[in-house]
Amino acid sequence: SSATAPIRATLFPGDGIGPEIAESVKQVFRTAEVPIEWEEHYVGDQIDPRTQSFLTWESLESVRKNGVGLKGPMATPIGKGHRSLNLTLRKELNLYANVRPCYSLPGYKTRYDDVNLITIRENTEGEYSGLEHQVVRGVVESLKIITRQASLRVAEYAFHYAKTHGRERVSAIHKANIMQKTDGLFLKCCREVAEKYPEITYEEVVIDNCCMMLVKNPALFDVLVMPNLYGDIISDLCAGLIGGLGLTPSCNIGEGGIALAEAVHGSAPDIAGKNLANPTALLLSAVTMLRHLSLHDKADRIQNAILSTISEGKYRTADLGGSSTTTDFTKAICDHL
Amino acid sequence: SSATAPIRATLFPGDGIGPEIAESVKQVFRTAEVPIEWEEHYVGDQIDPRTQSFLTWESLESVRKNGVGLKGPMATPIGKGHRSLNLTLRKELNLYANVRPCYSLPGYKTRYDDVNLITIRENTEGEYSGLEHQVVRGVVESLKIITRQASLRVAEYAFHYAKTHGRERVSAIHKANIMQKTDGLFLKCCREVAEKYPEITYEEVVIDNCCMMLVKNPALFDVLVMPNLYGDIISDLCAGLIGGLGLTPSCNIGEGGIALAEAVHGSAPDIAGKNLANPTALLLSAVTMLRHLSLHDKADRIQNAILSTISEGKYRTADLGGSSTTTDFTKAICDHL
Ligand SMILES: CC(C)[C@H](C(=O)O)[C@@H](O)C(=O)O
Ligand SMILES: CC(C)[C@H](C(=O)O)[C@@H](O)C(=O)O
Repeated sequence: SSATAPIRATLFPGDGIGPEIAESVKQVFRTAEVPIEWEEHYVGDQIDPRTQSFLTWESLESVRKNGVGLKGPMATPIGKGHRSLNLTLRKELNLYANVRPCYSLPGYKTRYDDVNLITIRENTEGEYSGLEHQVVRGVVESLKIITRQASLRVAEYAFHYAKTHGRERVSAIHKANIMQKTDGLFLKCCREVAEKYPEITYEEVVIDNCCMMLVKNPALFDVLVMPNLYGDIISDLCAGLIGGLGLTPSCNIGEGGIALAEAVHGSAPDIAGKNLANPTALLLSAVTMLRHLSLHDKADRIQNAILSTISEGKYRTADLGGSSTTTDFTKAICDHL
Repeated sequence: SSATAPIRATLFPGDGIGPEIAESVKQVFRTAEVPIEWEEHYVGDQIDPRTQSFLTWESLESVRKNGVGLKGPMATPIGKGHRSLNLTLRKELNLYANVRPCYSLPGYKTRYDDVNLITIRENTEGEYSGLEHQVVRGVVESLKIITRQASLRVAEYAFHYAKTHGRERVSAIHKANIMQKTDGLFLKCCREVAEKYPEITYEEVVIDNCCMMLVKNPALFDVLVMPNLYGDIISDLCAGLIGGLGLTPSCNIGEGGIALAEAVHGSAPDIAGKNLANPTALLLSAVTMLRHLSLHDKADRIQNAILSTISEGKYRTADLGGSSTTTDFTKAICDHL
């Protein structure tokens, strides 16, 4: 089965440093003999002059068909009316949950060495509805939409994730003391799902208090589930605790079991093409993709090789205080395999 | 003038530990010979059985008349339909800006020793509009309202504060890449005001990135100005960096120059009446009230006495790892004066 027939996975290398870090993933996967065959598509801000397309139907179909994919950073096409490609992909592929494992990297020193949590963000609605208008001159409003369906879906994902990943607690993050109806509905859905998972401890934490607790003592948290904007804020805050977006994996989960892993950092055009980029976030994201495919052995081996390389500290890219090139760092990881 | 005729200031001791920490402020002010005469009113969850009132007209009038006040923690009255007293006071007194100086306390160790920033939060609108409804079963929406008037007002306050407090930079925090109209209007207003203050550097930072930067390197920030909910989140995050709400002063600014300083921590009913509460947040808030009155000498003396007492470490309350009572800690501060 999976040991023989290769699994097809979509690869969007993206813009800027994207192609270089995608190359790093391909090389590490080859070395680890991961049975994956990449189906590569370009999505990004380099618009094809003939079609004017920056996101082709074929690219979307590839993810839908393969069920798994990996994406590098994408720049937003310049010009009026282009929304971020990240948002477009989320919408088109109905990627309803953004999952970010966030743990302190052994040997890479920050102010925190005790982070080990997962943020699970609702990815389709809330403050991201896009519904805004001017009421009268000088008065504008945005609509935050919360639905029972999307809230149940992400809550279900969070509890299932906790259960299948040996996690003990799910914290729902909210501001229901102010937004009683919207965040109140989100909490109500979380409570309903919590009842089906008596083995998982469930708690509710107000977002302001959550942020204070996270910076004081992140070890208090295990799995966090939350509406879109809170997830946007808290997942970046957590990334900051362990060193930044260059080190944090991310994976988007869609209806029908689609998983699109992604590096959430920018495309860093200033260092693009210079063999200086740090591929860690994309590599660790690729590892989450392997876990989604239940290729846990490969995932463990690759993750250990990445973490050991960073921990030993001999080969580190400039953003981590070293002077290695992308290819040297990648080679060091391959040598660990 | 102010050296002879005492200034009248309103005092709401509040609930739980409120009366004890208010007593501490009164004692420190007496010792420092601050020319303030307190006008004390009860606001809180202990409802007068005759009037059923937890917030009297006289209490509000007292702040309006005196122009300055200090409030302790207030519990929200239990029962249907009671909104938080904090919110009610903000609304009734039109307290449009919440200002929180946040700095690392010398000698009190956290993971950060380089925090020195001010958060200025719009306090009247945004996500706190209270406008919410169910669209159809399972679909609810909340309205976020941003107005030109309130945005200009808080931006003006922030730049004026920066200028008069020797600060160099104002960062407007937003998510205008998603909420282009609402947060876009907020930014537009900040830019307009920034033009009037060429000596102050102005920058715009997306909230998720801001939170990441704050936990990585808070020294990057100086004065932050932002819409209501982001202010709620970021001010608590910042409090966490320096040790928590028990150490953070807060002051609300209203139309016509009203200033209502406040401790933003809870009323801690579990330790109420036990002489265990830490009065630091209320004391430092009282100091911001003195600065608002331009009593800078008294403010400096009291602030130094508080910081020295904490820094020396001999007298600390239990929340700071010590075993002093509220009265011992207060006496130690008075001895420093
Ligand atoms: C780029 C931006 C639109 C996006 C978001 O807000 O979701 C980003 O911050 C993220 O977290 O993927
Ligand atoms: C208690 C709550 C309503 C309040 C708020 O959200 O504003 C609090 O968090 C604050 O910051 O004063």
